[in-house]
Amino acid sequence: MQPIPPNYMAYDRTIVVFSPDGRLLQVEYARQMVKNGSTAIGIRLPDAILLGAVKIRMPLAVAESYKKIYAIDNHVGFACAGSLADARDLVGIARIKAQVNRITYGEQISVASLTKHICDRKHLVTQYAGVRPYGVGLLVGGVDKNGPRLFETEPSGTMIEWKAQAMGRGAEKAKRVLNNGYKDDMSMEIGTKLLLKAVKAGEKSITPENIEIVVVKKNKLKKISLGKNK
Amino acid sequence: MQPIPPNYMAYDRTIVVFSPDGRLLQVEYARQMVKNGSTAIGIRLPDAILLGAVKIRMPLAVAESYKKIYAIDNHVGFACAGSLADARDLVGIARIKAQVNRITYGEQISVASLTKHICDRKHLVTQYAGVRPYGVGLLVGGVDKNGPRLFETEPSGTMIEWKAQAMGRGAEKAKRVLNNGYKDDMSMEIGTKLLLKAVKAGEKSITPENIEIVVVKKNKLKKISLGKNK
Amino acid sequence: MQPIPPNYMAYDRTIVVFSPDGRLLQVEYARQMVKNGSTAIGIRLPDAILLGAVKIRMPLAVAESYKKIYAIDNHVGFACAGSLADARDLVGIARIKAQVNRITYGEQISVASLTKHICDRKHLVTQYAGVRPYGVGLLVGGVDKNGPRLFETEPSGTMIEWKAQAMGRGAEKAKRVLNNGYKDDMSMEIGTKLLLKAVKAGEKSITPENIEIVVVKKNKLKKISLGKNK
Amino acid sequence: MQPIPPNYMAYDRTIVVFSPDGRLLQVEYARQMVKNGSTAIGIRLPDAILLGAVKIRMPLAVAESYKKIYAIDNHVGFACAGSLADARDLVGIARIKAQVNRITYGEQISVASLTKHICDRKHLVTQYAGVRPYGVGLLVGGVDKNGPRLFETEPSGTMIEWKAQAMGRGAEKAKRVLNNGYKDDMSMEIGTKLLLKAVKAGEKSITPENIEIVVVKKNKLKKISLGKNK
Amino acid sequence: MQPIPPNYMAYDRTIVVFSPDGRLLQVEYARQMVKNGSTAIGIRLPDAILLGAVKIRMPLAVAESYKKIYAIDNHVGFACAGSLADARDLVGIARIKAQVNRITYGEQISVASLTKHICDRKHLVTQYAGVRPYGVGLLVGGVDKNGPRLFETEPSGTMIEWKAQAMGRGAEKAKRVLNNGYKDDMSMEIGTKLLLKAVKAGEKSITPENIEIVVVKKNKLKKISLGKNK
Amino acid sequence: MQPIPPNYMAYDRTIVVFSPDGRLLQVEYARQMVKNGSTAIGIRLPDAILLGAVKIRMPLAVAESYKKIYAIDNHVGFACAGSLADARDLVGIARIKAQVNRITYGEQISVASLTKHICDRKHLVTQYAGVRPYGVGLLVGGVDKNGPRLFETEPSGTMIEWKAQAMGRGAEKAKRVLNNGYKDDMSMEIGTKLLLKAVKAGEKSITPENIEIVVVKKNKLKKISLGKNK
Amino acid sequence: MQPIPPNYMAYDRTIVVFSPDGRLLQVEYARQMVKNGSTAIGIRLPDAILLGAVKIRMPLAVAESYKKIYAIDNHVGFACAGSLADARDLVGIARIKAQVNRITYGEQISVASLTKHICDRKHLVTQYAGVRPYGVGLLVGGVDKNGPRLFETEPSGTMIEWKAQAMGRGAEKAKRVLNNGYKDDMSMEIGTKLLLKAVKAGEKSITPENIEIVVVKKNKLKKISLGKNK
Repeated sequence: MQPIPPNYMAYDRTIVVFSPDGRLLQVEYARQMVKNGSTAIGIRLPDAILLGAVKIRMPLAVAESYKKIYAIDNHVGFACAGSLADARDLVGIARIKAQVNRITYGEQISVASLTKHICDRKHLVTQYAGVRPYGVGLLVGGVDKNGPRLFETEPSGTMIEWKAQAMGRGAEKAKRVLNNGYKDDMSMEIGTKLLLKAVKAGEKSITPENIEIVVVKKNKLKKISLGKNK
Repeated sequence: MQPIPPNYMAYDRTIVVFSPDGRLLQVEYARQMVKNGSTAIGIRLPDAILLGAVKIRMPLAVAESYKKIYAIDNHVGFACAGSLADARDLVGIARIKAQVNRITYGEQISVASLTKHICDRKHLVTQYAGVRPYGVGLLVGGVDKNGPRLFETEPSGTMIEWKAQAMGRGAEKAKRVLNNGYKDDMSMEIGTKLLLKAVKAGEKSITPENIEIVVVKKNKLKKISLGKNK
Repeated sequence: MQPIPPNYMAYDRTIVVFSPDGRLLQVEYARQMVKNGSTAIGIRLPDAILLGAVKIRMPLAVAESYKKIYAIDNHVGFACAGSLADARDLVGIARIKAQVNRITYGEQISVASLTKHICDRKHLVTQYAGVRPYGVGLLVGGVDKNGPRLFETEPSGTMIEWKAQAMGRGAEKAKRVLNNGYKDDMSMEIGTKLLLKAVKAGEKSITPENIEIVVVKKNKLKKISLGKNK
Repeated sequence: MQPIPPNYMAYDRTIVVFSPDGRLLQVEYARQMVKNGSTAIGIRLPDAILLGAVKIRMPLAVAESYKKIYAIDNHVGFACAGSLADARDLVGIARIKAQVNRITYGEQISVASLTKHICDRKHLVTQYAGVRPYGVGLLVGGVDKNGPRLFETEPSGTMIEWKAQAMGRGAEKAKRVLNNGYKDDMSMEIGTKLLLKAVKAGEKSITPENIEIVVVKKNKLKKISLGKNK
Repeated sequence: MQPIPPNYMAYDRTIVVFSPDGRLLQVEYARQMVKNGSTAIGIRLPDAILLGAVKIRMPLAVAESYKKIYAIDNHVGFACAGSLADARDLVGIARIKAQVNRITYGEQISVASLTKHICDRKHLVTQYAGVRPYGVGLLVGGVDKNGPRLFETEPSGTMIEWKAQAMGRGAEKAKRVLNNGYKDDMSMEIGTKLLLKAVKAGEKSITPENIEIVVVKKNKLKKISLGKNK
Repeated sequence: MQPIPPNYMAYDRTIVVFSPDGRLLQVEYARQMVKNGSTAIGIRLPDAILLGAVKIRMPLAVAESYKKIYAIDNHVGFACAGSLADARDLVGIARIKAQVNRITYGEQISVASLTKHICDRKHLVTQYAGVRPYGVGLLVGGVDKNGPRLFETEPSGTMIEWKAQAMGRGAEKAKRVLNNGYKDDMSMEIGTKLLLKAVKAGEKSITPENIEIVVVKKNKLKKISLGKNK
Repeated sequence: MQPIPPNYMAYDRTIVVFSPDGRLLQVEYARQMVKNGSTAIGIRLPDAILLGAVKIRMPLAVAESYKKIYAIDNHVGFACAGSLADARDLVGIARIKAQVNRITYGEQISVASLTKHICDRKHLVTQYAGVRPYGVGLLVGGVDKNGPRLFETEPSGTMIEWKAQAMGRGAEKAKRVLNNGYKDDMSMEIGTKLLLKAVKAGEKSITPENIEIVVVKKNKLKKISLGKNK
């Protein structure tokens, strides 16, 4: 993290204040929490989204319990970097939104609508006092009528759609791998290899056991490699 | 940004406080966020408004997803400079207002009424505590019964109508180009050339792929050059 | 602006606090914002009020859109100095009040009642926390049953009636011109000349195009010289 | 004003805080605003109250509009020193209270009840956060069943009844004149002379045009000397 | 007042904060306001309570209007030291409570119940933010079914019953006189003499005109010496 | 009290903030207020609870009025150390709770339920802003279906049951006496002697008149030695 | 605890603020309160959960009253480290939730649902102003349809499932013992030995009397060794 010059002091202590150079420092610090998190990656394939995330290995922990990829509905999932506690809150909000959509309209929520709902919530807490920004980034991957979609949401509430994107401490290096290797027509196998390569680029001494991969298809989320999806 | 003298400290930490020289510093810092944004330009033609904006190129991003020009209704659009997250919030407010007008009065909202509604919202958050100003400038371009209209809104909530105007980091140089080149009776072709020239004046090493242009006509918004409008 | 001695620090950071010498500094700083604004002048004639204001010239701006004189009803207008965004807020409040009066009592609101309503609002925000004072001064000019009336409201909520008054950065010099030249029985022509002379006294290198003049008569507001009144 | 020792800093920045020596500094500063105001004086005569106040002369101002003595009902008036904007707020509260009393009980409000109502309001804003004390002192003069009554209210909410009292920047010297000259059985003429003498003692280079005098009688308020009462 | 060591700074600026040594400084400062007040004394006689208080002499003031002893009901009164404005607030609360008791139960409120009600209010404002402690001490004297009762309430909300007690700037010396001279079976005459002696011990150059004495009996409050009770 | 190192400054000024070493300083300071109080002691006998407290002797005070042991119902009482004003508030809450239990269930509240209710209230004010912790410790002694119970509540809201416990300035030394002398089968006489010995260990130059002792039995609270219980 | 560098000052004083390096310091300090607590351990056996906690020995305290293991329902319990007062609050919330589940669905709440409910509450107080994080960690152990489950909740609101886990001041050393000794098929006897060994590794001079062990089985919680479970 670059040092904060002394005259910045005080522009960053409350959530709703601009600094003289036009920045919202609290939002930038929340982004830093995302950057401190372990790497998460999303890749769009012709008919699926690949979500991957790194988990720190904890010997006696039950692996499924600290997953970083969450199913929201049977056609969309979140990969997270940053505060897992904040992620859990947004996962809860997203699952309710998805079910409300099913009940109201009788169909799956579109991936873009779901992402917009999460971003509205993220933005709200950057403008009003009395609540802090979310310290978590989400890669929203899903498959709907428009085919596979991959969105990134970050603490400010901005949403961008990607073909492939990385978040967290290994993001810089992982993005370079993705930029060089991404192709629009990759098979599942080649896509998975690219994802693993990108993860390994940014995380030191990672082993396959520490990588969680989920394939999001039209009506199904499936965990690849270690552990069972729940 | 010009340096803030030390005795200004503390006049700029909360949103609703004047400095001794009669300035609202938080509003000025929000304006700085607008000035930090990439350039956005609007030009009034005899029967249309041209909106143009610069997008940073991100290799794997889906171009449509991080657009800086938004359709509000079929006769009005916004070009933004500054916080895209704040812009999304105002876009949502504007779209609802436009639809409510259609439902209530059975006709399109006038461009001036829509702009006034956004400016009321922008002003509100500069006077009350507990919420921060919007860090985004909008060029509102539309065509209604009064012909083509182009308004600028800035963080204080002031609204001004222009024949041609620029916002963002290249605004100074772009305005000089507009002042010299603007004519009331420009054709679409000449207007588009003027817009491109103005954009390039203020943005270094810009390529056509980084410029997004939308023509707003009586009942239609149309994207020019790269990408499709959505 | 005179410098604030260091031991004043902290008496001026929140809106509802007195300084040890019995001043409300936030209100004084809001007054400074009025003093920073371009000059506005009002003159009472035997059967009309003249309102005049200086507008900074902006080449491509649509002149009507950044006017500093607003019609509130067909017998009363505001000339503003200071924050135009704050002025817009008060203009909206005043227009609603005027229409409510017409609906409730079937007649035009008196100029004094309207001014009192605006001053009540201005005072309120100087006494309660959570909202800042208005950084705008208004010259309220109108003609009602009591003949032509000209009131000044300033950020504290005080209201004073004048035969002729000036606000904004040229106020000092303009007032001297008004004091020397004002007569109770001036014709429209002589009054307008006095207004122009007063404006020019306080504003450097002003041209007629930069001066906006509105005559408020019994049931009519009319713009003099450049542009049409809207 | 006596200087505030440095170790007092911070005890006077919020309205509801005591200083270590048991003072409410914000209330004392509000009193200072009263002391900064121009002089106001009240004198009890056998069957009337004389209220007098000094007005700064402003050449083009309409004298009636910035009066410092207000009629509350046809038997009671206020003379003010300090913030005229705060005074207007209390005048409005008092007029409503007086009319409510007439409607509810079919008679004039007693001067003591009215004063108590104003003092309750003044005290309230010295105990609760989020609102500042009133920076105005009032001399409440009226004639009711108990004869002529003269009360003083100050920012703390204390009320005291006087035979004669002065407020504002000339109060010290004026009180000395009143103490020496007051008699219980003064005629209107002698009382008015005493009032003028007291005013002049505390205000430099005052002329009769700057002094506003109102006689409050059983069912009538009458302005003496310059201007007409409204 | 003993000096506050520098490391105490900040423990005393908000009302609900403890200092490291377990004190509520704001409450102690409110007590200091009581100690700054002029002396008030209460004495229990076999069938009455004597309340006495010192009033500063103000030549033209109407003596009854700034009394420091208040009748609450026909069997109970308050003597005050500290802020008279705060006292007025509590007197109002107490009078309402006493009348509500009469209406609800058809009998006089007991002196202990009334005191408890006032102490509950005093305590409340020492625990919640947004309101300051009362800067006034009260001696509550009354005669009910349990005979004559004398209670002291202080800013913390503690209540203690006394045979004789003093408050205000002369309290120290007055208490010594009371301790030495008090007897359970004093007559009214001897009790009044003791009260006067105690007052004079703590107040310099006091004259009988400055001392207000009220005798509270079973169904009557009576003023002794100067002025009439109202 | 141990000194607070300078770098602790600011962690203790608001009630809901942790210090870097994981302490809630405001709660600890409230505990200090308890430690500053005079000693209170509770002892469990085979069929009763002994509560004892030290009262400072005040010559003219009515002893019953400043008692430190309160009856809550006919089977349970509180002994207090710390702020008596805070104690009064909790006593009021407890008495209401006890009566509500009688009305709702037709039986005495259990001592544990009552203590839990008080602890819930004490904890609440340590977690929410806008209200301060209670600066009082309580020894809750009562006899219910489960026999005699003695609980301690402290400012954090923790509750612990004891056979014998001491609070206040003499607690350290008193506890040593209790630890050495306590036996499960003490008679009332021996228990009272132990209590007196413990009190005297921690309080200098105490006389029997300064010690208040209450025996809580199945349906009766009885004061021992000086004064009558009320 | 590692020292906080001076430039961190102010990022940790309010609960909802990020530090420049993307941390929520108040949450970390709350975690420190957990680390300061005495050790608590949970172990999953094939058909039961073992919960163990260390209690400081207090000679005259009634052991059951300061237990650190709480029964929530007949199939689930909490072991706590950190603030016992905060734990009591969460225990109350959990017991209500468990009973509501029984009433609504006619069955025991699942251990995961109960833990999620507690974590939602813990997270909420880390995002909103006006309330502080909980300074307590919980090991939630229960047996439901999915067999024995052991969850850890910490102040941020994160939840992780474990086969065996330790919290509090001895956690580091205890975890090492658990990692080395844990086996999936341990008998109750071997599991209890492992738990005791782990506790002793992190706590100096511990005796069996200071260790509280509870076995959670399908429909029963049973205390092992000293004291009876209540």
